[in-house]
Amino acid sequence: MFTKNVVKAAPVIDGQSKIAKNRIFNAVVVNSGNANCLTGKRGLEDCRKMAEVTGKRLGISADRVLVSSTGLIGQVMDLAPLNKGIGPLIRSLTHVGIDDAARAIMTTDRFPKISSRVVELSGEKVTITGVAKGAGMVKPEMATMLAYVMTDARISSVAMDKALKIATAASFNRITVDGDMSTNDTVMLMANGSSGNIKIPASGSNFRKFTDALSSICLELAEMIVRDGEGASKVIEVVVSSARTQKKANRIAQAVANSLLVKCAALGEDPNWGRVASSAGSAGEPFDTQKIEILLDGKSFYKKGMPVVVGKKVRDKVFSGDRVHIEMKLNEGNKSACFYSCDISKEYINLNAHYTT
Amino acid sequence: MFTKNVVKAAPVIDGQSKIAKNRIFNAVVVNSGNANCLTGKRGLEDCRKMAEVTGKRLGISADRVLVSSTGLIGQVMDLAPLNKGIGPLIRSLTHVGIDDAARAIMTTDRFPKISSRVVELSGEKVTITGVAKGAGMVKPEMATMLAYVMTDARISSVAMDKALKIATAASFNRITVDGDMSTNDTVMLMANGSSGNIKIPASGSNFRKFTDALSSICLELAEMIVRDGEGASKVIEVVVSSARTQKKANRIAQAVANSLLVKCAALGEDPNWGRVASSAGSAGEPFDTQKIEILLDGKSFYKKGMPVVVGKKVRDKVFSGDRVHIEMKLNEGNKSACFYSCDISKEYINLNAHYTT
Repeated sequence: MFTKNVVKAAPVIDGQSKIAKNRIFNAVVVNSGNANCLTGKRGLEDCRKMAEVTGKRLGISADRVLVSSTGLIGQVMDLAPLNKGIGPLIRSLTHVGIDDAARAIMTTDRFPKISSRVVELSGEKVTITGVAKGAGMVKPEMATMLAYVMTDARISSVAMDKALKIATAASFNRITVDGDMSTNDTVMLMANGSSGNIKIPASGSNFRKFTDALSSICLELAEMIVRDGEGASKVIEVVVSSARTQKKANRIAQAVANSLLVKCAALGEDPNWGRVASSAGSAGEPFDTQKIEILLDGKSFYKKGMPVVVGKKVRDKVFSGDRVHIEMKLNEGNKSACFYSCDISKEYINLNAHYTT
Repeated sequence: MFTKNVVKAAPVIDGQSKIAKNRIFNAVVVNSGNANCLTGKRGLEDCRKMAEVTGKRLGISADRVLVSSTGLIGQVMDLAPLNKGIGPLIRSLTHVGIDDAARAIMTTDRFPKISSRVVELSGEKVTITGVAKGAGMVKPEMATMLAYVMTDARISSVAMDKALKIATAASFNRITVDGDMSTNDTVMLMANGSSGNIKIPASGSNFRKFTDALSSICLELAEMIVRDGEGASKVIEVVVSSARTQKKANRIAQAVANSLLVKCAALGEDPNWGRVASSAGSAGEPFDTQKIEILLDGKSFYKKGMPVVVGKKVRDKVFSGDRVHIEMKLNEGNKSACFYSCDISKEYINLNAHYTT
């Protein structure tokens, strides 16, 4: 899965073209500090050189190596560090190096992001483990979200595509830090089939079990990304429920999660439900203000067309935890959507005012 | 013209229903501090009482009085100050009171916003004068944009509608401070026909002259609103040019103007053109990264698929003024769009973290 931004970095363009031709890959090489984006033909050549150099050292074709980059946009790559470092790097690979890998892909992340599950499928155990990086609050160009999920399961390529789509839709595509979308975002699922399980097809109970575990890993990694931004102190969970359509629930939840005013309210622990209503109303989706209910941390603040009188003690407690919950019930149907966001801080402004210079 | 937010304040609901029945109004009464929004039937009754009390004192029907409110959402109105103050207020009305009116509608605004033009139509002079309030950076619930444009022109109701739509589309609908849309936004155009001009029809040269002057007033007021935010130090002008469709130009320009990262870059005087490309690419409109050109303060930073090497002296100068200019040429058509925004500051975060409590 790659970014939907119209502006795509060289490794995204290269990866999409490789995946269209071939589904067997043996290695991923990742660099940080330079996004290799808007760097023209030279950028694509540099990306291919990264795959070539890596493949050569591993004794495999460059076609079987995928590349990811994260860092500044519009800078020509300097390949000298890669050319020099790839040998020692490959010699240091071990079976227990997952923590090293999770740390190596960090840029401004404060902690490595790893999540793992073991699932039993028809009596055989398979393991799924994911690592991710991303911390949108600090240096958003560095905050490209990269996630690599690996499994020893035997699973068809079609089943993998389907499972990853489901898992991503419910996790990485439901987080928002500053509303901006990176040019380099990438989520990969890789299976080596070394487990003894019966091959997982694209439906049925084994597929569901595998997809549930994968979704749970992706959601855990996505929440770690939201929580990690320097300056961010709270995870905001926005739920829009009982909507008539899924699209409506999604759009309203996303509008509330993206609202700068809602983020400020969370930071200040201010139960400002009017901002929730106002940002929901600007999503371009109709709803009935006489029917909706707005709850902050489970307490109702607006219901049946009128504000609810809430005592000072309850108001003071709302939004005081490090995980805040906003729910808007539309009371018109049975679809719901959840988005994850975080509060905004002065550090965000400070850090982002001076970046390239 | 009223807000397009699904959540509409009582005076907006009341105003829309009044205007559907009648186009003759003699007064507008405005309160600040309370938005009278999400206040149910009680809110609508309070709004009607405001019109009644005002009409009674002026000796006109309540149907001929329009109401605006600006302030906190979800608070029941206290009408005592209005009931007490409306008498003295009406007694103090004068022909030269436009500055008082502009000051009276201010909430957190740092300066009153007035703009005026005299146009000659077939040899007769007509005057158009507008006042506005709004300063989105500080207390956005207080920042409802209200604008009242008055003229002595004789002009048909149809021509007024058409002229105001044109003027608003090119001004108030092209400013963005924090991406949030108020529940109370209102722009009114009122004409009393006291000038001796021939009645302005809905087309032709007199209509064009009138509309040009009106547009120029609205644009001046809109820019004053953007410039006024406490903490905001720069107006950002975003132009997307040579697009294939108007919709595309609009959507891309709006995405760039709304980008928090672009606002931070302006604050830090950081020529971070990669953020312009990235936010443009997330607007959901396709463009060719080989064809586009990105200019900051008139200097080209990306062209023909490659970054342009820009010397330190030029880079240091870019974004240093109090009005910064961002242009993205798509080089695929002849449509263009312009949006106005402002930089973001730590004061914004500070002020918005604690508001209702």
